[in-house]
Amino acid sequence: MRINDNYLNLQAGYLFPEIARRTSEFAEANPDANIIRLGIGDVTEPLPAACIDAMQQAVTEMGKRETFRGYGPEQGYDFLREKIAEHEFQARGCDIHANEIFISDGSKCDTGNILDIFAPGRANTIAVLDPVYPVYVDTNVMAGNAGPADGSGHYEGLVYMAATAENNFSPQIPDGKVDVIYLCYPNNPTGAVATREDLSRWVAYAREHDALILFDAAYEAFICDPSIPHSIYEIDGARDVAIEFRSFSKKAGFTGTRCAYNIVPRSVMGTTSNGTRISLHDIWYRRHTTKFNEVGYIVQRGAEAVYSPDGQDQTDELVHFYMANAKIVRQALQSLGIMVYGGVNAPYVWLKTPNNLTSFDFFDQLLNEAHVVGTPGSGFGAAGEGDFRISGFNSRKNVHEAMRRVTENLKI
Amino acid sequence: MRINDNYLNLQAGYLFPEIARRTSEFAEANPDANIIRLGIGDVTEPLPAACIDAMQQAVTEMGKRETFRGYGPEQGYDFLREKIAEHEFQARGCDIHANEIFISDGSKCDTGNILDIFAPGRANTIAVLDPVYPVYVDTNVMAGNAGPADGSGHYEGLVYMAATAENNFSPQIPDGKVDVIYLCYPNNPTGAVATREDLSRWVAYAREHDALILFDAAYEAFICDPSIPHSIYEIDGARDVAIEFRSFSKKAGFTGTRCAYNIVPRSVMGTTSNGTRISLHDIWYRRHTTKFNEVGYIVQRGAEAVYSPDGQDQTDELVHFYMANAKIVRQALQSLGIMVYGGVNAPYVWLKTPNNLTSFDFFDQLLNEAHVVGTPGSGFGAAGEGDFRISGFNSRKNVHEAMRRVTENLKI
Repeated sequence: MRINDNYLNLQAGYLFPEIARRTSEFAEANPDANIIRLGIGDVTEPLPAACIDAMQQAVTEMGKRETFRGYGPEQGYDFLREKIAEHEFQARGCDIHANEIFISDGSKCDTGNILDIFAPGRANTIAVLDPVYPVYVDTNVMAGNAGPADGSGHYEGLVYMAATAENNFSPQIPDGKVDVIYLCYPNNPTGAVATREDLSRWVAYAREHDALILFDAAYEAFICDPSIPHSIYEIDGARDVAIEFRSFSKKAGFTGTRCAYNIVPRSVMGTTSNGTRISLHDIWYRRHTTKFNEVGYIVQRGAEAVYSPDGQDQTDELVHFYMANAKIVRQALQSLGIMVYGGVNAPYVWLKTPNNLTSFDFFDQLLNEAHVVGTPGSGFGAAGEGDFRISGFNSRKNVHEAMRRVTENLKI
Repeated sequence: MRINDNYLNLQAGYLFPEIARRTSEFAEANPDANIIRLGIGDVTEPLPAACIDAMQQAVTEMGKRETFRGYGPEQGYDFLREKIAEHEFQARGCDIHANEIFISDGSKCDTGNILDIFAPGRANTIAVLDPVYPVYVDTNVMAGNAGPADGSGHYEGLVYMAATAENNFSPQIPDGKVDVIYLCYPNNPTGAVATREDLSRWVAYAREHDALILFDAAYEAFICDPSIPHSIYEIDGARDVAIEFRSFSKKAGFTGTRCAYNIVPRSVMGTTSNGTRISLHDIWYRRHTTKFNEVGYIVQRGAEAVYSPDGQDQTDELVHFYMANAKIVRQALQSLGIMVYGGVNAPYVWLKTPNNLTSFDFFDQLLNEAHVVGTPGSGFGAAGEGDFRISGFNSRKNVHEAMRRVTENLKI
């Protein structure tokens, strides 16, 4: 049996294992240190009460013959798709319909699975930001859309678009033709956002070059500035050239509950090898119904409750809670003269390491002097070297204590 | 943007839409007919009380900060993997460890996703039974492991192994070399089982030819005969050549709750293009952790409860309930002189259509004369023409009523 050799091109999952190794080494050497983790992007606060109530009720329904549910529609129940279409899109003037929404179990899965419907091998040129969420890159390597990595960790064949402080995190539009563009706004890891003008440039590029935008908006709920678009479909013409990914993970604390969705408008087209134009919606529908079986009923009822009046208030509170944490992080770092970015419309604070330390050297300093774990920017791509990510996902008490130690103990 | 042309080779999802079309046409013409559906393989009875209780408690935990769970391990929580290893495998003498088990959201997803780690295109020769669960075939077409279909619906490049009454549903071992073999026992759609000797022949073939067996045991809970293996790992040597798929869907009524698992033993190897031997476990682990985010905590707690003493009793009761339905179906059909198969160690009864009717002609007769919906065998492959599937998944009352109508009204 022959295996998929493309997997051999993957570099070892370096970042998080290395963080874990250094952290546990430190913990062993310093058993009394109370390490505070602001590294991984995982939520800490309980689910909104509205979601809890809805799921309790749904569990009860599953225990009675009259209300029991077996297989549901693979694309998700209409009760959830219609609420999403109304609240997330139509309320913002986006021309997106419930039947263009596919409920799924996670944006990580979706951004990987979408590659199934693209021509395999190097038929498409794929562009990603740098630094970048590693899943976009790894799944393209697995699918054979990229070759081996070079010394900087860049994979052959991918187009990397640096998004750094130097260009205000607004990468240059590619000179030549690329076929697929991954955009993530609010950005993981930098916390940057895209203005209406930024997104309009991308949509214009995609329309001109027959490119497809994969727009990951997993963090849209954290946008506080009313001028920043939450969806790419707020841009005219986007529904012909963009697929969008959304998640309840960060918005409503569903990282351990699992519910997300993607939007594939009926108007987005791709091309066959003989030049025929084909609706991506139709082949994604075939993929989704053949290779996926809906998110469970109980979880879909929990997600639906996000759109109840109580659910709306409670998810707003959650978002404000984490954003207040991010503000505390920003202010503490700024008080030390550290350059910080993000943390205003995103739960991630991105910082320039002091004294031109490498990302991992600053990781060690932060761990040793403040007993705080963050994420080295170099782990997200070569352009992240010298940068560092700290997340606002933790309790208020831990964030306060972490920043007290940073301001009092960090020797910079 | 170039799409995956392989999707164009897929034949229209013919079977279930056609069943739906004929059924609704009949319902419109006969508005008073009380149609009973024994077609689709979906459960009807509520979840076991032990699962309901465990999920209620897990939902409550998710609503409190102290017990809230964010991201869990992608492969599933140890509490569930260890119970599965113990109850499903070690208790049957299978040498399978918890860390070889991957918790997932469905066997449909798993049997499709596993193709990600196989060399793409026609590098491997794939063998399937005929009749066959259509997902095995469709996902191989999508992955480019097969070409266009011929007039009988067989896709170019796939090896079809007829499993019919003529060979006692025990297909001939291929003469030449195939690389991947899909086996499903107890079988969907025929309800046939594989004896220890049958499975031993397959394992010997796979070991001799360096082939991989994909063993789908989604219906193992319905095995009543103690001599029939539940797992392929009950056969010596299988852990070097087989991946197994299991599900809580039918065993515990989880079709709308979503939890399954697959076993990739560390000893199963594949080959790279230059002949290097590689552990499939390692690359599947990379695939699973990169492209999937665990099943939600609440659902994993529900699945764990299947292995509590109450859960064991309650799932046994569920299985006995559906098997008693299958027995009622078998006896009713036999009383009419119809040849029936399956329905003894599987919830599906497979029958030879009377009077040599085509599968769809018998579908129409059953619908018109008894107002009962079943599934035409031809929809599962060319070798299923002239056969028909009736499932035991319905209430006792409906099964009794359906069989009363069949015995009293069917003109054969």
